[in-house]
Amino acid sequence: MERIPVAVLGATGTVGQKFILLLQDHPYFELAELVASERSAGKPYAQACQWKQDSPIPRSLAQRTVKGTDDPLGSPILFSGLDATVAGPIESRYAERGYIVISNSRNHRMDPDVPLVIPEINHEHLDLIHRQNHPGAIITNPNCSTIFLSMALAPIHREFGVEAVNVTTLQAISGAGYPGVPSLDIVGNVIPYIGGEEEKMESETLKILGRLAGDRVEPAPIRISAQCTRVPVVDGHTETLSLKLRSRAGPQDVARVLRQFRSLPQELALPSAPGNPIVLLEDQDRPQPRRDVWLEKGMCTVVGRIRECPVLDIKMVILGHNTVRGAAGAAILNAETLVKKGYLGNGSRLHQAMNQRRLQAVGAP
Amino acid sequence: MERIPVAVLGATGTVGQKFILLLQDHPYFELAELVASERSAGKPYAQACQWKQDSPIPRSLAQRTVKGTDDPLGSPILFSGLDATVAGPIESRYAERGYIVISNSRNHRMDPDVPLVIPEINHEHLDLIHRQNHPGAIITNPNCSTIFLSMALAPIHREFGVEAVNVTTLQAISGAGYPGVPSLDIVGNVIPYIGGEEEKMESETLKILGRLAGDRVEPAPIRISAQCTRVPVVDGHTETLSLKLRSRAGPQDVARVLRQFRSLPQELALPSAPGNPIVLLEDQDRPQPRRDVWLEKGMCTVVGRIRECPVLDIKMVILGHNTVRGAAGAAILNAETLVKKGYLGNGSRLHQAMNQRRLQAVGAP
Amino acid sequence: MERIPVAVLGATGTVGQKFILLLQDHPYFELAELVASERSAGKPYAQACQWKQDSPIPRSLAQRTVKGTDDPLGSPILFSGLDATVAGPIESRYAERGYIVISNSRNHRMDPDVPLVIPEINHEHLDLIHRQNHPGAIITNPNCSTIFLSMALAPIHREFGVEAVNVTTLQAISGAGYPGVPSLDIVGNVIPYIGGEEEKMESETLKILGRLAGDRVEPAPIRISAQCTRVPVVDGHTETLSLKLRSRAGPQDVARVLRQFRSLPQELALPSAPGNPIVLLEDQDRPQPRRDVWLEKGMCTVVGRIRECPVLDIKMVILGHNTVRGAAGAAILNAETLVKKGYLGNGSRLHQAMNQRRLQAVGAP
Amino acid sequence: MERIPVAVLGATGTVGQKFILLLQDHPYFELAELVASERSAGKPYAQACQWKQDSPIPRSLAQRTVKGTDDPLGSPILFSGLDATVAGPIESRYAERGYIVISNSRNHRMDPDVPLVIPEINHEHLDLIHRQNHPGAIITNPNCSTIFLSMALAPIHREFGVEAVNVTTLQAISGAGYPGVPSLDIVGNVIPYIGGEEEKMESETLKILGRLAGDRVEPAPIRISAQCTRVPVVDGHTETLSLKLRSRAGPQDVARVLRQFRSLPQELALPSAPGNPIVLLEDQDRPQPRRDVWLEKGMCTVVGRIRECPVLDIKMVILGHNTVRGAAGAAILNAETLVKKGYLGNGSRLHQAMNQRRLQAVGAP
Repeated sequence: MERIPVAVLGATGTVGQKFILLLQDHPYFELAELVASERSAGKPYAQACQWKQDSPIPRSLAQRTVKGTDDPLGSPILFSGLDATVAGPIESRYAERGYIVISNSRNHRMDPDVPLVIPEINHEHLDLIHRQNHPGAIITNPNCSTIFLSMALAPIHREFGVEAVNVTTLQAISGAGYPGVPSLDIVGNVIPYIGGEEEKMESETLKILGRLAGDRVEPAPIRISAQCTRVPVVDGHTETLSLKLRSRAGPQDVARVLRQFRSLPQELALPSAPGNPIVLLEDQDRPQPRRDVWLEKGMCTVVGRIRECPVLDIKMVILGHNTVRGAAGAAILNAETLVKKGYLGNGSRLHQAMNQRRLQAVGAP
Repeated sequence: MERIPVAVLGATGTVGQKFILLLQDHPYFELAELVASERSAGKPYAQACQWKQDSPIPRSLAQRTVKGTDDPLGSPILFSGLDATVAGPIESRYAERGYIVISNSRNHRMDPDVPLVIPEINHEHLDLIHRQNHPGAIITNPNCSTIFLSMALAPIHREFGVEAVNVTTLQAISGAGYPGVPSLDIVGNVIPYIGGEEEKMESETLKILGRLAGDRVEPAPIRISAQCTRVPVVDGHTETLSLKLRSRAGPQDVARVLRQFRSLPQELALPSAPGNPIVLLEDQDRPQPRRDVWLEKGMCTVVGRIRECPVLDIKMVILGHNTVRGAAGAAILNAETLVKKGYLGNGSRLHQAMNQRRLQAVGAP
Repeated sequence: MERIPVAVLGATGTVGQKFILLLQDHPYFELAELVASERSAGKPYAQACQWKQDSPIPRSLAQRTVKGTDDPLGSPILFSGLDATVAGPIESRYAERGYIVISNSRNHRMDPDVPLVIPEINHEHLDLIHRQNHPGAIITNPNCSTIFLSMALAPIHREFGVEAVNVTTLQAISGAGYPGVPSLDIVGNVIPYIGGEEEKMESETLKILGRLAGDRVEPAPIRISAQCTRVPVVDGHTETLSLKLRSRAGPQDVARVLRQFRSLPQELALPSAPGNPIVLLEDQDRPQPRRDVWLEKGMCTVVGRIRECPVLDIKMVILGHNTVRGAAGAAILNAETLVKKGYLGNGSRLHQAMNQRRLQAVGAP
Repeated sequence: MERIPVAVLGATGTVGQKFILLLQDHPYFELAELVASERSAGKPYAQACQWKQDSPIPRSLAQRTVKGTDDPLGSPILFSGLDATVAGPIESRYAERGYIVISNSRNHRMDPDVPLVIPEINHEHLDLIHRQNHPGAIITNPNCSTIFLSMALAPIHREFGVEAVNVTTLQAISGAGYPGVPSLDIVGNVIPYIGGEEEKMESETLKILGRLAGDRVEPAPIRISAQCTRVPVVDGHTETLSLKLRSRAGPQDVARVLRQFRSLPQELALPSAPGNPIVLLEDQDRPQPRRDVWLEKGMCTVVGRIRECPVLDIKMVILGHNTVRGAAGAAILNAETLVKKGYLGNGSRLHQAMNQRRLQAVGAP
């Protein structure tokens, strides 16, 4: 299979850097273009970017010239790690020009015709792209904390029905990007507030677990209450959950459905798919972010301490890697699903769009 | 008023050290004796103890010879910071000999005839000491996390009735004593488990908020579900709460009853009583342990972010100083209440006990 | 004594906030005016400022209207916590208008006619203000790390002569102001570089320990080599020192001169002076920033582990509170010295300047 | 090549666990036996051990029965991560029985007939084993902080001669094992003392850089002064160095010899050898432990900020992974050198010893 050229939008930011690392040597995609704000455009990437990853800038990209968001792009697929303050209109404009935008930004997530996808849960929502009023497409993945919550809820919801969820998060500092949280605010401290995060968890989860009905998603009938805190951890969001179920189920039943859970990405053996989307740990003091965040290369949701809840029905602790499965990795898995499910195949709408966009790209800025 | 001589049991431990600091220049009590295990007995305090407080050992105590738990004691009131592995029988033995044991240890808290007291909430439970089958008395204060939870619940429970509580804690490392939590376990990490803590919060709270009915306490009819985690914070336990109420009340109503709450320790102006037992913060990112833990000298419960809960009724964030109001300070406030409420006055049972015990003390080891 | 009205320049910044806390109820000075950039001017202080101190904004100042640096000021003494990017010309302009600027900023420290003062060491350098070519005066205190180094060196230098110093610092995050160091850079990490810090330590120390010769300071003939690192500590700079001495002296000799050191601020009993400017700790694992930084209310230099150095002569570990004695507290002690040494007395140059400036202030913006 | 069966002594400890991880799938060695104290002997490894590594216990070892130090062992090579309180006599006893002990413990490092080896620097010291008065052999690697210091010094010493070194360390908590440093001592703090560490750095380095002269090592004529501190970092010791050189050399010269340095392990392409034993970083704020500790899989010494020193000649910052190259990895590289240099080959003393020991092992406990 020939690799599809792709671009990263917001390539100098924290999410953009993670896209670059995760797209190295990807079997489906070839990272062809780096796009950033006008301030960075025209500079070599290594100079435009404050690289903050633990491994160095890939050699082949260090001297690559960064393009601006007005430059013509030759890649049909764009991974967007754009800052939410600008992502909305820029992503729309690309879609109007026929690009397929795989976005990690929050701006279009709740648009009725934009799929908000976790391939293990609701890959069929991808069909929504046919409702979009532009030649291209916008596909989004959820907020980081929401992904792990949804992953843990989905199998339980299908089997027993989830009626209500109380969740408290203990989120890592890398979730706020760079420079992000000032050290004076978080060293030896807890900040019991993250702007907009509780609202995202309470709304996005319902769309993800919802049912595709005609041209829209019917939100799942679940009540969710989130309390989000920041803790001095580098990577890995921990969440404590209490669930009310519609059918009766004990901790053993819940553990069983979580342990057995496999879905489309596993069946298709997608390159970024975790072997086990949900990993259960037995020790009573796990999961722990520093020790367990890299399980399944950071692409799974880790679950522990499943037990009865005296107020609702079941409680547990979950964990996920917020900048891998919680951001860039989620978007890449969405793109892999798009490819393998045939959305880009001969005769498909997007195949035509890609062809048409190529023609346009030649002429237009 | 002549100061009452007191002893600290477990004087070399973390709680014992805090007792020593908080009893310096106390208007009611004079720290006369330091008691510890046989390993420390006979040594000067400064040598027996690995002092880990931020201010130095009080000069007058550094050379004080530590007594053993078998040595005769001349102080009628004993503050116990004994380790829970040994506290049970030692405290009982002292009570049998006529001492008044004010204990921070968990061992006797749930004994039916032992008061588990937070003076702002249930000082009348102190009457339980008249049911104890020994000449002395044992009085306990709750577990640290439980104290802040109970303080926040009590005014709401009285006004609106609390039916159920979901609570997640983010607890400081000082709560585990010294050496306590290994740094390799907690630096840059979260440990989602603290042995026995969830059970204590779920049971002790009901006794504290319960009603004294004859010779026992009728537990409050509240369902509590706790999830306890450890975070890399030095002092200060943060807790996220979701409450279900029996009467309808909005965030403003709840804020009002919390803000107005005053009780016996404030009326009696007890030396350790916080002016405001509950301090409300308005900023949406407070309370924070490093910044707010010393409000009211660490003796209050700090509350913030009161808002509606989509699952139960009300949610909020609370904070308290786990080694001050959460441990030694709680016990000292109990003792101050005991004194000011007249339990030790002329003609009282404990007054007689104290006299009798003094006689015994002369003869017996 | 009537209190002198003072203003704080840069009142909304980190150093400005500390000035405000330390000037509360000051016996010599009355905080009359808060001055900040044009962005803040005209707003109530509580609104203009992101308050980041552990105690709340003093009640009397929360609603005080912030003035701009172009507004006329009625206070003759200005404490400057201005950012170094703007402090230079602004401070000069105030001095030209007859104000006495007590600055913590680095801009004028090395000007030949500006005293760089630590009152315990070189209060006589204050005479340099008579060389300044403006009606007012500029007086500076050293960089935080330099203050503690100079304090430890001064008594040793006087007694034995210091020839060379190797110093490595482990500096707290509060030294970088707010927002300062991003948490992603420092949580669980060390940053072995602080811009400009090594140069300041290597040059400022020589001026402080230098000799006033006519109209200039002859730098002390000491070679200093500094390596500065940032560590995840909130407050308190730790430094490891190795010294080469001109006269032979052992650890006991050095300990003795440090322990006995007292100077002018102690003799004058200045309000902010530490009782002991240098506190020696005996335990081999001290000083430690979290445990020892508040000794002498954060105004002393703490010294420990004095021992022989196999390469130079003597090594030791020192510690100081970087935002108290290392910044605002240093400036305030300078101002107290100025007052008590008579620089502002009847008939003095500054007394005349203050009078003259008052006249100007009435007319001029 | 047939893999040599090896055992790990002290297999349940922190260093032992690292041995186990690093010996997985090793091309020369097969981990055949796990040995620990009598308390652990007889139990399955997973039960005997508090596993604290970030990856799980290798599946093949979890149920392996732990042997005691008195049980007969079938492996000729023993990797020792024994605690220093017991390692001395146990290692000697094994050597007397003909085993080859590759030890990370400090006990025999300074024995005149025991090689203290870093293969890149002094592999020829291995010849010392022929002077040992027992049929087996004891080979040691240096203390963690000493390894990185020696690695940085060796090429400079050879080219320019090092006369004196001032070094300050900022050491990670993992260096103290488990449970190691209590979190209350180190969260948000610095401990300026590590027992015995300064002495080890000041003495071991001289032996490593010394010259093998007949039956002993002549220590290198270098004066070293170390100041060791602990900081809240998980893995990675940072060190600031100041060097006095015998020949004149500037930062560029020093950078060149460090950059070009390669040695025996690189020539032999030993399995654990870093491609670059010394990695130079150009950014002025590097090396940083959290970001750079895994360069060359944790087996190199990272160097940055090489510049002139106003007191001595050259200063720089270095970093290394204390539990990989600084402990278990160092020992394994020593063993690989032993194999590839032919010390175990046909006809060698150790080959005979191994054969003889096998005979003994059959009969003796």
